[in-house]
This record gives sequence, C-alpha cells and structure tokens, in this order.
Amino acid sequence: MMEKRRLYMDYSATTPVKKEVLDEMMPYLTDYFGNASSFHTFGREAKSALDKAREQVASLINAKPNEIYFTAGGSESDNWALEGIAYANRNKGNHIITSKIEHHAILHTCEYLEKHHGFEVTYLDVDGEGRIRLEDLKNAIKDTTILISIMFANNEIGTIQPIKEIGQIAKEHNIVFHTDAVQAAGNIPVDVKELEVDLMSMSSHKIYGPKGVGALYIKTGTKLHNFVHGGAQERRRRAGTENIPAIVGYGKAAELAKANMDNHISTLTRLRNRLMNEILERIPNTRVNGSVENRLPGNINFSFEFIEGEGILLLLDMLGIAASSGSACTSGSLDPSHVLMAIGLPHEIAHGSLRLTVGDFTTEDDIDYIVENLPGVIERLRSMSPLYNESKK
Amino acid sequence: MMEKRRLYMDYSATTPVKKEVLDEMMPYLTDYFGNASSFHTFGREAKSALDKAREQVASLINAKPNEIYFTAGGSESDNWALEGIAYANRNKGNHIITSKIEHHAILHTCEYLEKHHGFEVTYLDVDGEGRIRLEDLKNAIKDTTILISIMFANNEIGTIQPIKEIGQIAKEHNIVFHTDAVQAAGNIPVDVKELEVDLMSMSSHKIYGPKGVGALYIKTGTKLHNFVHGGAQERRRRAGTENIPAIVGYGKAAELAKANMDNHISTLTRLRNRLMNEILERIPNTRVNGSVENRLPGNINFSFEFIEGEGILLLLDMLGIAASSGSACTSGSLDPSHVLMAIGLPHEIAHGSLRLTVGDFTTEDDIDYIVENLPGVIERLRSMSPLYNESKK
Ligand SMILES: Cc1ncc(COP(=O)(O)O)c(C=O)c1O
Ligand SMILES: Cc1ncc(COP(=O)(O)O)c(C=O)c1O
Repeated sequence: MMEKRRLYMDYSATTPVKKEVLDEMMPYLTDYFGNASSFHTFGREAKSALDKAREQVASLINAKPNEIYFTAGGSESDNWALEGIAYANRNKGNHIITSKIEHHAILHTCEYLEKHHGFEVTYLDVDGEGRIRLEDLKNAIKDTTILISIMFANNEIGTIQPIKEIGQIAKEHNIVFHTDAVQAAGNIPVDVKELEVDLMSMSSHKIYGPKGVGALYIKTGTKLHNFVHGGAQERRRRAGTENIPAIVGYGKAAELAKANMDNHISTLTRLRNRLMNEILERIPNTRVNGSVENRLPGNINFSFEFIEGEGILLLLDMLGIAASSGSACTSGSLDPSHVLMAIGLPHEIAHGSLRLTVGDFTTEDDIDYIVENLPGVIERLRSMSPLYNESKK
Repeated sequence: MMEKRRLYMDYSATTPVKKEVLDEMMPYLTDYFGNASSFHTFGREAKSALDKAREQVASLINAKPNEIYFTAGGSESDNWALEGIAYANRNKGNHIITSKIEHHAILHTCEYLEKHHGFEVTYLDVDGEGRIRLEDLKNAIKDTTILISIMFANNEIGTIQPIKEIGQIAKEHNIVFHTDAVQAAGNIPVDVKELEVDLMSMSSHKIYGPKGVGALYIKTGTKLHNFVHGGAQERRRRAGTENIPAIVGYGKAAELAKANMDNHISTLTRLRNRLMNEILERIPNTRVNGSVENRLPGNINFSFEFIEGEGILLLLDMLGIAASSGSACTSGSLDPSHVLMAIGLPHEIAHGSLRLTVGDFTTEDDIDYIVENLPGVIERLRSMSPLYNESKK
C-alpha cells in the first residue's frame, strides 16, 4: 500500500523544526536542564546557552544582544509592545495608529485598550495590494499619538509594508514605532539599524525553530512597562523561568536563517512563482491577492470565484495537501478574512481564498503534484456551485 | 580520571524532564509539527494531542478539561489571574489581599497594579512557620475586596497554607480566590473540587515536564479579562500558537505525577528527613526554617548562623552539589530573602540560608555525600567569619 502523501503547504502557519535546530536543543532537554538564574554549575550551563542564543537572534536583525528580550512567542511580543508603550505613555497621550490588516494579536489588543483602558485607536485603510498609504498615516497623527504599530509583512497575503518610510515619519513626529515582524524576521532581510524601528515582534516557529518562544526587540532607551511581572529574568524586563531548550533552538534557527537567506529567498520565490503562474494558466476566474513586488517569497494567496475556501481545504487535505484559508488563528470562525475585506474584495470572493505557502522543504515534485490536482478540485467545487452554473448561462 | 559529580539538589528551581515525558514529546518536535488551529491533517494531529494533554492536566487537580488554560508558565498564569480579575472587577472594588511571602510573580504584579492601575493591596503577615493567620485574613477584608491570592506552598521554605480554610472565607465573602500552586500541583495532592479555589496557577518544569509551559485553572463561570490577546486559541481566552510539544510533555508529566504521588511523597519525605536530621545533629547553631508538619515533601531550608548563603553555594558547587539560597528568580540581588524576613529571621540570619530540595532522582548515596561534606563546608566558612570567632570568646 502506498503511504498517504503529507504535502505541507502551510509554512506561514508554522514550520517544522530543522534537524540542526533539534540537535542543538536536545542536550538542554536532557543533561543541561538547569534554571538559568541558578547560582551553580547547572545554572551557568543554561545561562551561557541563553547568552549565545541572544547573540544569534540579535545578529539576525542586526541588533545588539541586550536589545533582545525572549518571550513565549509572537503574540506575547505584540501584546507587550502595545500595552507596555500605551501604559507607559498615558501622560503624553492616548492615541495609537495601526492598520486594518494586522494580525489579531495586534487588533484584539488594540480593541482591548480601547474598550477597557481609555485608549483611542485609528485603523488605517490599505490599498488594493494591502499597503498602507503614507499620506493616510501622516494625516492620522495627532498631538496625542503615542504609538504607531504597522506589521512588517502580512501573514495572509504576504504584502510587505514600507517600513523604513513609516519609521521615518514616526521619528519626525517623535512617536514610538512598533512593527510585527513575525512573518518577516528570518524570511526576508530585516535590519533594525537601517530601519527606524523602536520595537519589533518576532517568533521562532515561523522560521524552523521550536514553538513557544519569540522575542521582542526593544531599542536601547525605549521606555515601556513590563508585561509579565515577577522574577528578575531578561534583565528584569520579562519574568518567568527561561525556556532554555526552546531559546537555544530559536538561536540556532536564527543563525541558519541568516546564513541561508539568499538561497532561501531565491528558491522559495522560484517555486512560488512557478506554482502561481501554472495555476493562473490552468484555472480561469482566479486572482492572486496582494502585491507582486512587495511580497514574502513563500506566499501565494488565490481567490477562486464562485466557491468557498473551506471546501477547497477539505478536498486538498484528502489529497494529502495541507493548505489554509485566512489565518490559522481564526479557524473556527465563519467570518471572511479581515485582510481580504480590507484590500477591497467583495464578501463572496473573500470567502473563496486559498493560501499556499512554500518553505525550505518544498520540492519541484510537490509543485507538480499541486498543479496536477488543484484544477480538478476547483472544477469539482465549481460544478456544485449554483453561482458558477448561473454565471455560465 | 573521575568524572565530576553532578549532584542536583535544586528541584524547586526546576526539574529535569523525565525520559517518558521526552519520549512523548519527540514526535511533536519532528513529524507532527502542525499548528493546532489549522484545518488539515497536520493541524488535527496537533489538536488531538492538545486535547489529551488538557485531560491529563485536568485530571491531576480533579478539574474539568475545559477549566484548564495552557500558558507559557507559572509567571504568566500568576500575572493573568491577578490582572485579569483586577481589571474585570474594577467596578466592584479595587482591593486585593495577598501575603508577604508570595513569589515575585505575585508580589511584583501586585505592586504594578498599585503603582500604575489604581489598586490597593494588603500584604498579610505570616507566623514563624510561614503561615498566614486566618483572623488576619478576615480582618483585612473590606467592601472593596475583589481578590484574595495566597500561595499553596512556598518555594523557599516549603510551607503549605491552609488553602481550604482560606477558600471558605473567600467564598463566604463572595470574593474571588486565586492560589499559586506552582510548587504544589504535581508534588502534593491538589483537588480543586474539594478546595474552594476559583483560579490556580501551575507550571510544568517543577514536575519533570518541559520548561515554557504552565496552566491557569479557571473555575467554570469565573469572569476575568484575557491577558494575551489575539488568535482564538484556548477557547478564545489565551492567544498564541499552541506550544504542542511542551504541552504534550506537561500532560505526560501530570499523568506521571498523579500515578506516582504516594510513592513520590513517601520517598522524598524519607530522604529529606534523613538529610535534615543528620545535618542538625552534625552542625551546631543551625535552624530549619518553615513548618515541620505543613511542608512540601522535598524541601529543607537551613539557616547556619554566622555565615552567608553565597559562600555555602560556592563551596558546595565546587563539590558538585547544586543548591540554592532564596529563590532562583532573585539571584543577582543582594537583598536577603523576603520570605525569611517575613517569618521573623533577623537580617544576618536571613542571609545565611541554604535551600536543599530533593526530587525523584535523588538517591541515598546523594544524601550520604552531602552529610559527609556539608559540615566541613560550614566549618570552613565559620572559621573565616569574625562573627563566629567573636561568639566563641
Ligand atoms: C503576523 C503575525 N503576528 C503574530 C503572530 C502570532 O505569533 P505566535 O503564534 O508565535 O504567537 C503570527 C502567527 O501566528 C503572525 O503571522
Ligand atoms: C511559587 C512559584 N510561583 C511562580 C513561579 C514562576 O513559575 P515559572 O518559572 O514557571 O514562570 C515559581 C517558580 O519559579 C514558583 O516557585
């Protein structure tokens, strides 16, 4: 009997842990299990692993090691940045600017700050490709604006924002700038020295590191409240026993990402473009959402007219292809993607989206298999769709 | 050449991961790496592992699975409980009651709520053994009291609080009761059905599970704000991609802890008592801090008059013995332990404490080695101490 195919095309949701990463973690899951804050050999072993990982992550984004604070993941980093800056600057103002296509870790934190803590939030529109307009940003700034938070690259449609320009505007107005770089840092070049970024969220499990760890970059001199209070870990800024095995893995993943960056980008872009072009050729009434130029290398987001995303996912899964529609974090919800709505797709079309993300383990053979099978899946679903049959009359 | 001894006597700071636990985690660090929120095979594999772990952790404390919310550890659970209840009950009152010997994850969160968010906190004194007085608790309750947070068992001196009685008082007054059971849940029997507990913090790495994961027990019907906002994970109450490998490990550790509870307690108690009695016999001017009766099975906390804890740790470490003084989370601070001060030790004596915690891998041979070596260490340090030489005149 043939083994069932396991074709993973959902690298934006999470990535497998690379073997080199796991190998690096194993000693810390076994012999070197100490608490990094302990005053003895076991503690010092853990502490020096922590120091090394901090350098590796810092180096990935060209930061100083003491500007890296480990967290439990991208969501915690986002929450910390927003709440930390908001509460620390309450005496200066209560206005925050973000965009309509942020991850829910940003949007829901903003809504929370509005609803329960007296802040006011402007959610910027985006253009048809998913980029904010710099003019809109400038116009939104008020005397009371204390924070701008715009994501580096979008998790659904892969659109990359003009981060450098946003940073410059923030700096001119003396406003703190945070960017959610969970999809970017490790997948495309990110250099905090070159960009005017004060805070940046990152996550390990999007770049072949383990789950449960991320980081917040905090530029030297940036004042914000702590988020997790308690022990003196992370130079008194983030409490909790350090998750050394995961941090070690994240460090290694960051190191690999930096070393392989050029190859990663060119390979993923080639595979992605081939898949995109062949599907566009073979399946009529299909559009690609997002930008052509300013896009994460691994991301494609299709809309297939007349059908729903859920049906596509189901049939693909039966063929052994793991894909997504919208973001993993909102599964279970029946709402259309807030990102696709924001780029102007009508409700029906926003429902019919398919995100395929390629990654470091994707092969040409995988692309062949999808190109062979996806047209049949779409055809089959359309043949059952009253809208489609209507349209052909 | 003899290998250097690695004698770990710091199980309260963190524990090694048990082999059965790591074995259970490995498939999720390799093949089954999916995002538990994804709508495909990889996602469903992760989701069912998550469901199983939730049942295992629930079963450890006799809760329902849907009362268990996974977090990144004990500190996050503590922060969530306190801030979540405080902000959600602001319209009812702003007063919180806790004790002077809580972990810093509680104390510093309380201080933060006082300093920045308008809450008022009463820090109860404890008696010479480290237990709060129920009369003090009753007297501290006001119309504005919205939360009582008293730890289950102390991390430095091992003292167990009268949790059931505290819960009854809280219930009579219609006040939410939270307990930090990071040292208790998995080490001693904890049954939330029997106790009147509304919220309880737990952590995996104190019970032979991996670091970076913990849980907050939230009794059905308890209203609190979310702490980490974002995706719809943990039934919309705690955002962030689920850390499946760690959660699976925590589940297994909880299962083992439940199955081995009786043996764990009797073995640790025996080893601990032997060590305690032999040291008390051999080293004069020594006291044991904390309670005899109401104490965690693995914990001993000594004060050796005339000397400082740091010197003891240093010399023990040279002998291959890993121990601690105060809690790991405050290392780097020169303050005497807030717990030892609260039980009434004078400043000089609070500085000279040694915490030895035995665990599931401690052997009789380990105890022999410490009993042979500790007296020499103390003797040596005392011989260099002016205070000691003074006292002998
Ligand atoms: C853009 C973006 N921000 C934040 C997050 C949240 O990160 P994590 O799942 O590590 O908490 C994700 C992924 O889920 C993301 O894609
Ligand atoms: C009583 C107590 N509460 C909270 C914590 C914090 O737990 P964690 O290190 O898992 O964040 C600890 C241990 O460090 C503890 O002993």
